[in-house]
Amino acid sequence: MAKETTSHLQENDFSKWYLQSIQKADLFAYGPVRGTMVFKPNGYALWEKIKTEFDKKFKASGVKNCYFPMLIPESFFKKEADHVEGFAPELPWVTRAGDEELEEPVALRPTSETLFGNAMSDWINSYRDLPMELNQWANVFRWEKRTLPFLRTSEFLWQEGHCAYATEEEARERTMHFLKVYQETVEDLLALPVYAGQKTPSEKFAGGVDTYSIEAMVKDTKSVQAGTSHYLGTNFAEAFDIKYLNTENQHVYAHTSSWGVSTRLIGTMIMAHGDEKGVVFPPKMAPIQIALIPVGNVKKNPEVLTRLEAIEKDLQAAGYSTYLDDSNNSAGYKYNEAEVKGVPLRIEFGPRDMENGQCMIKMRDLEDKEAVNLDDLLDKVASEMETMQKRLYDKADQFRHDHEHFDIDTLDQLKAHIKSCEEKGEYPGWVLAGWDGTEETEAKVKEETGFTTRNIPFEPAVEKNVDLVSGKPAKHTVWFARAY
Amino acid sequence: MAKETTSHLQENDFSKWYLQSIQKADLFAYGPVRGTMVFKPNGYALWEKIKTEFDKKFKASGVKNCYFPMLIPESFFKKEADHVEGFAPELPWVTRAGDEELEEPVALRPTSETLFGNAMSDWINSYRDLPMELNQWANVFRWEKRTLPFLRTSEFLWQEGHCAYATEEEARERTMHFLKVYQETVEDLLALPVYAGQKTPSEKFAGGVDTYSIEAMVKDTKSVQAGTSHYLGTNFAEAFDIKYLNTENQHVYAHTSSWGVSTRLIGTMIMAHGDEKGVVFPPKMAPIQIALIPVGNVKKNPEVLTRLEAIEKDLQAAGYSTYLDDSNNSAGYKYNEAEVKGVPLRIEFGPRDMENGQCMIKMRDLEDKEAVNLDDLLDKVASEMETMQKRLYDKADQFRHDHEHFDIDTLDQLKAHIKSCEEKGEYPGWVLAGWDGTEETEAKVKEETGFTTRNIPFEPAVEKNVDLVSGKPAKHTVWFARAY
Repeated sequence: MAKETTSHLQENDFSKWYLQSIQKADLFAYGPVRGTMVFKPNGYALWEKIKTEFDKKFKASGVKNCYFPMLIPESFFKKEADHVEGFAPELPWVTRAGDEELEEPVALRPTSETLFGNAMSDWINSYRDLPMELNQWANVFRWEKRTLPFLRTSEFLWQEGHCAYATEEEARERTMHFLKVYQETVEDLLALPVYAGQKTPSEKFAGGVDTYSIEAMVKDTKSVQAGTSHYLGTNFAEAFDIKYLNTENQHVYAHTSSWGVSTRLIGTMIMAHGDEKGVVFPPKMAPIQIALIPVGNVKKNPEVLTRLEAIEKDLQAAGYSTYLDDSNNSAGYKYNEAEVKGVPLRIEFGPRDMENGQCMIKMRDLEDKEAVNLDDLLDKVASEMETMQKRLYDKADQFRHDHEHFDIDTLDQLKAHIKSCEEKGEYPGWVLAGWDGTEETEAKVKEETGFTTRNIPFEPAVEKNVDLVSGKPAKHTVWFARAY
Repeated sequence: MAKETTSHLQENDFSKWYLQSIQKADLFAYGPVRGTMVFKPNGYALWEKIKTEFDKKFKASGVKNCYFPMLIPESFFKKEADHVEGFAPELPWVTRAGDEELEEPVALRPTSETLFGNAMSDWINSYRDLPMELNQWANVFRWEKRTLPFLRTSEFLWQEGHCAYATEEEARERTMHFLKVYQETVEDLLALPVYAGQKTPSEKFAGGVDTYSIEAMVKDTKSVQAGTSHYLGTNFAEAFDIKYLNTENQHVYAHTSSWGVSTRLIGTMIMAHGDEKGVVFPPKMAPIQIALIPVGNVKKNPEVLTRLEAIEKDLQAAGYSTYLDDSNNSAGYKYNEAEVKGVPLRIEFGPRDMENGQCMIKMRDLEDKEAVNLDDLLDKVASEMETMQKRLYDKADQFRHDHEHFDIDTLDQLKAHIKSCEEKGEYPGWVLAGWDGTEETEAKVKEETGFTTRNIPFEPAVEKNVDLVSGKPAKHTVWFARAY
């Protein structure tokens, strides 16, 4: 392993680093059907943590969970023209059941606005039925050409919120509320700073009016769209006839919204916090938070193991998930195992430690070990965990700031910047630039650099006045970056 | 509503009673694709309770959650001959994605033994990797001809455990362990007594060796198979090459098992506890456990509402889920709403109650109301909830015993019994009878009476010595009944 840990794979071949890291951490396996994956127990545990936290917050917001069928009739897609155009190329179709051909092909859901729209038109009659805020946890399908475990798979897991409101104002207000829940949770739980902002029309949800996203920078400085919240206007209400009787006794269209986060959050987190040794989990996310490793000849000193088991019990009683490695492997092998699995805190305990009433602790993201008196261990663990959670956030925040560029104002400058980075073997980062609001600029930038508009951040670090392609006055200040 | 509540719909037209009851309780809606359904918030909340409880017990048993892809290649099914024969007629097939025909059709999973088998053959190398006990919560598909919400739908939600062991003994022991977890949880949480036993070969899992089930009786005296646990022998290990290196350094096949419960538990519970007024939820299962209803003119006595809100807060603080109905509807309307929604306990509170420092409480399954001193309310609620949970179990247990028949020893007697029940407008119940172990007996009984073998109970009330068709010596004592 020494060879790998001292290499610079993360800097030099990020894809290879990523695949190796998630394999060493035993998070996934490839599925037999193209682009599908197995979430192995270590990987699925991450999703359970994400799900539990979001579910709590949605429920606290008044959202109710439900479950809709996975199969969508072809006719439903056709009701919203932009929607079908956007999703059609990626839809898998069931055409047969047993030996029978189906009369109408049915799609595996890529998202469920059409099904919720159809149901809401039945369920909503008057203003008293509004707002209606629903959510489901489900598997969805998008037949992607290029796939990457957790980040982009033919089938993935997500939640999709679907809401209906009486007014545009309320719908927009709640659209922003759920975006904010995403931002706060991703920053707090995943220790991942994000930029909240609005997507440009070319990047918005097919069939929607306005899409908002949170965008995270990972260690190859690409952007990941980590969550989206869409204001859908009355588009789906018109397509599915979602009308309500208002207080003036008129039948009017409801305003709808939808919002989702998915298992790609797992890949994003790993790409943002991982280091050359592999994955690094923030304490709040780690399936195993503490590894306890006996040092020295345990057979000669069986009491070491007994004492370590007592320490483990105390830690478990304090709420930590732990793993005591009492296998026959060497201590060094065990240290490495705990590191490649991303365990935040490691406790080493041997005969001499026992004599001295202490143990050694080592944080996954720091170099040095520290001796800790056993009497102080619980307090120390609590403070180290809290500090590490914050430290990972701060490091990721520093990293993104180190790779943000505010002084690139023309396409030529962007191209020169990218070339210079390539020559130095550096990743090109994100560029905050002016945009005149045209698709021509977006197309030109993408074609020549692979950079796309990520979002129009709500709080740009600086305001830009000139479009970087046309030189015309900028309508918006936009993040441009390569993205997953 | 008076008309319905005094009718005998449950006795006279059970299907209609069931559909009306789950509709009034707002639990489901039909999906647009044949045989699919929407789990509305009230219905999905029931599944969340079931899921939470089972998930806790599986984890306590050492099982790890994971998630496998939903799509299964055609070639996988063909590896186990009985398996493909059993499931082929019900499989929906994806044949196209976007505009492209797939090279190999892929099925929507009806169950995932093949996928887990394929993966385990990679993951298991030596005896040190065993036992491997995995579980997933997932949607599955079986294209059924006749469907019924919750009980039998084209898509349903379930958990499927998949395990591999070194020896037959251990595999069988754990197969029984998970059956026992099912029995205990269904009896405790759903207040539903069940018979655990072994399925006959004609009713066992396609591709397995032995199938065990828990069977519940519902109020039309039909049986519902409420959970199954299968010992699969080395059938899937041979089909997918799941071998491990044993301690004697030989490569040998692992023994596998699988086990599942599904959303049909929801329908079973409703059919077992419901009454003429509609659904009745056991306190441990009820999404809303307590309805608080102000009585009299609240506008004249706003303090009634203030006090009731304070009572609600106390109940919530004690851990109950509550609903305070402060709508403009009449108290009678609100009572009915709480009843058709299956709320276990209702609190009525009006101006006179306030003066007397009391409230009225009414349990969903009892006729009479009771005055309770507000100071005693929390204790009273706790004891009433506990008593009701037990009472529902006891009632269901009494009901099944009242409809079990031990004195029917021939097919003619069974037919006479059924005829007599039909004439009296009664449901025919279950029959414990002798069986010689042949499919001929099963086929004959089914053809002439619609009764099928449910299971060979582990603890039969009596032992039967003679087959009810052939008159030959019985090999087993078996429950015969009509079933969902």
